[in-house]
Amino acid sequence: MTDIAAKLRRASAVVATPAYVYDVDALVARFDVLKTLFGRHFGVSYAIKANPNIELLRRIRPHIVTFDASSFGEVQRALSAGMPASRITFSGPAKRAVEIERAIALGIGELVLESLTEAEKANTVAAALGRRQPVLIRINPATAAGHFGVNMAGKASQFGIDEEVLDAAIAHVRALPHLELIGFHIYSGTNSLNVKAIVDNFATFIRLFRHGAAVAGMTVRKLVFGSGFGIPYVAGEADLDIAAVAAGVMPLLDELRAEPAFANVDCALEMGRWLVGPAGWLLTSVVAAKASRGVDFRMCDAGFNNHLAACGMMGTVIRRNWPFINLTNADAEPHKYTLVGPLCTTIDVLATDIILPEVLVGDVIAVTNSGAYGLTASPTRFISHPEPAEVLIEGDTCLDVSESRLNHWPAALA
Amino acid sequence: MTDIAAKLRRASAVVATPAYVYDVDALVARFDVLKTLFGRHFGVSYAIKANPNIELLRRIRPHIVTFDASSFGEVQRALSAGMPASRITFSGPAKRAVEIERAIALGIGELVLESLTEAEKANTVAAALGRRQPVLIRINPATAAGHFGVNMAGKASQFGIDEEVLDAAIAHVRALPHLELIGFHIYSGTNSLNVKAIVDNFATFIRLFRHGAAVAGMTVRKLVFGSGFGIPYVAGEADLDIAAVAAGVMPLLDELRAEPAFANVDCALEMGRWLVGPAGWLLTSVVAAKASRGVDFRMCDAGFNNHLAACGMMGTVIRRNWPFINLTNADAEPHKYTLVGPLCTTIDVLATDIILPEVLVGDVIAVTNSGAYGLTASPTRFISHPEPAEVLIEGDTCLDVSESRLNHWPAALA
Repeated sequence: MTDIAAKLRRASAVVATPAYVYDVDALVARFDVLKTLFGRHFGVSYAIKANPNIELLRRIRPHIVTFDASSFGEVQRALSAGMPASRITFSGPAKRAVEIERAIALGIGELVLESLTEAEKANTVAAALGRRQPVLIRINPATAAGHFGVNMAGKASQFGIDEEVLDAAIAHVRALPHLELIGFHIYSGTNSLNVKAIVDNFATFIRLFRHGAAVAGMTVRKLVFGSGFGIPYVAGEADLDIAAVAAGVMPLLDELRAEPAFANVDCALEMGRWLVGPAGWLLTSVVAAKASRGVDFRMCDAGFNNHLAACGMMGTVIRRNWPFINLTNADAEPHKYTLVGPLCTTIDVLATDIILPEVLVGDVIAVTNSGAYGLTASPTRFISHPEPAEVLIEGDTCLDVSESRLNHWPAALA
Repeated sequence: MTDIAAKLRRASAVVATPAYVYDVDALVARFDVLKTLFGRHFGVSYAIKANPNIELLRRIRPHIVTFDASSFGEVQRALSAGMPASRITFSGPAKRAVEIERAIALGIGELVLESLTEAEKANTVAAALGRRQPVLIRINPATAAGHFGVNMAGKASQFGIDEEVLDAAIAHVRALPHLELIGFHIYSGTNSLNVKAIVDNFATFIRLFRHGAAVAGMTVRKLVFGSGFGIPYVAGEADLDIAAVAAGVMPLLDELRAEPAFANVDCALEMGRWLVGPAGWLLTSVVAAKASRGVDFRMCDAGFNNHLAACGMMGTVIRRNWPFINLTNADAEPHKYTLVGPLCTTIDVLATDIILPEVLVGDVIAVTNSGAYGLTASPTRFISHPEPAEVLIEGDTCLDVSESRLNHWPAALA
């Protein structure tokens, strides 16, 4: 913790708050863990949506086999980060025609088919280009493992092709001459901290992958396993026991890959949150203090405009406090505070009744676990406050990698 | 409805979806209603945060007495829209030092004091500039009227100065030589559809304004009444009976302004949502269709990235369907649909089990009541989809007033 605090204090000297800080060394350490535990069977497919900062993508690129893009904008980001089109997969339930056209024209690695309509469109586009486009069918399982933050399986969904109609879909796709079915993709649950749930989920994936390969009578070249690895956001949650996940999952892969249909398969763990979430923080300065009716308020220069998830507005029914660090005043006497943002609305609350070392005006506070679904998942233009900066920490270097500071008046006026 | 649909169809020909459309004539009609009902006692102070599009602000400017800015970025927008600094009020619970400095240097009309710390800062800045800055004290009432969408009164709050400590605060501010206390501001509840609640709330305001004037022993020049006028967002809600509000409120003002301390007071109704909300729509195209496990999905090119509030993620515990219009196919047979956005997350839902005239791929759907807290209150960069356009309808003209299309690939590629 002290180490991190020192790093973040250094980063906070580089740019004005609010600022997102990403620690490349911490990120690489997480890739190393994955490689050690899963490397024998899996490469990583990084889901750009978790954090699309291009400089960050450049640091991620050497550690992965593919980028998973969920829009053509994300495809462009992957290209900008130096990834060849052939190592980008393109998923998403509402791909526009122009997105499919451009992706196929670019020579995108795999198109992840979310419906048969999409398959038809892609086939037409590939035919016009004289191409045969590699595709994965995304499967929506009929059974759901519990203990996921969000679970898509076993219910009606905009994602993928329902298991119940998979056989017909495979036949349909295989009959389209300009598509080449090379494998399958499943992402049916996200943000789980439960080892058994994740392992059970992988077992479901494998059952469906086997079934799909048998129905297709094909040698499978590619399988994408939506990892669903979670990170702890609130008090009382523990880190996912990733070694236990590997202990449960790897024997399943040993078996699978011993089968002829899967002898030469490339398996990818698709993930974003688990990798970048814990490697990022939002830094915010305390702008004002006020006592009101028994509550000690601290007003910060970042609110839900800069961090929707920490304010409990990203699919959470009840906001719970995330862990915060007082970087400036770490050793002071603890007090109880309510931390709010700068917005003129009562819902702009970062934390209630949180215990922190005394928080003074001017202190810099860090919101932990903010590397995923932070800046770009937040309504940064709301009330025209300055856009947060973005900083990379690499070893002893702090690098300003802000892509946009839409309202740059603080820099101009400071 | 037919009129509006025709207008929106015209607007949808000007730009690609997703697009926000604002109808200036509808907006002006709402100003006319206010003028007729409240004009004898009130001018309007427009809260920029509701919709800060600069071209829209230019159309609003002739109808108001002041812009209410909640950040220095919003002050700059008001200036860009042609408003002199002297007719801008600046509120907000976490004004940065640089914001206070710049606002006073500009000659901002009134600084709305949210705390005594802010008063001290402003006094120091004004002293350095050799100015005397007009200020309003924002009061946080001790009693709350019910039936507001959000209620700030009677509880601990980051906003304003608690009624319980108002007397001391007035004395404190009056003793600061470079501040000139000219009146008071209260905004204690928002988005109410209940006439009695709003009238009771205004009665509370007036009681506090009287008390404040008496304590200060001053002739009051300016009072800001946070209107809290709501608009109906979901089925079963009726329009606010604005004439009934006026019938309840105006006699209170007759009385107040008959008193010597208020004989020359300027009263402002501060509002945003009631004015611009019903004059705006989000247009989104249907990109794909899918049946999954008994549900008819329609995937749209706008999701919570473009309209956080309609997706129930803007302080709402349970998402309820907003009213939608099928612009393309208005007279078709009705069916039941679930409308989702383009994002790779299950929380990206616009409407569930909504009955609409048959929705086909390519149809353009309008989300009603989207003129306030729409574009800028949404995480438009999430998953790098194209930023929505903005269009003004004025009479027979449709004007593209988009301020930013961060991801302009559809325009470039269309």
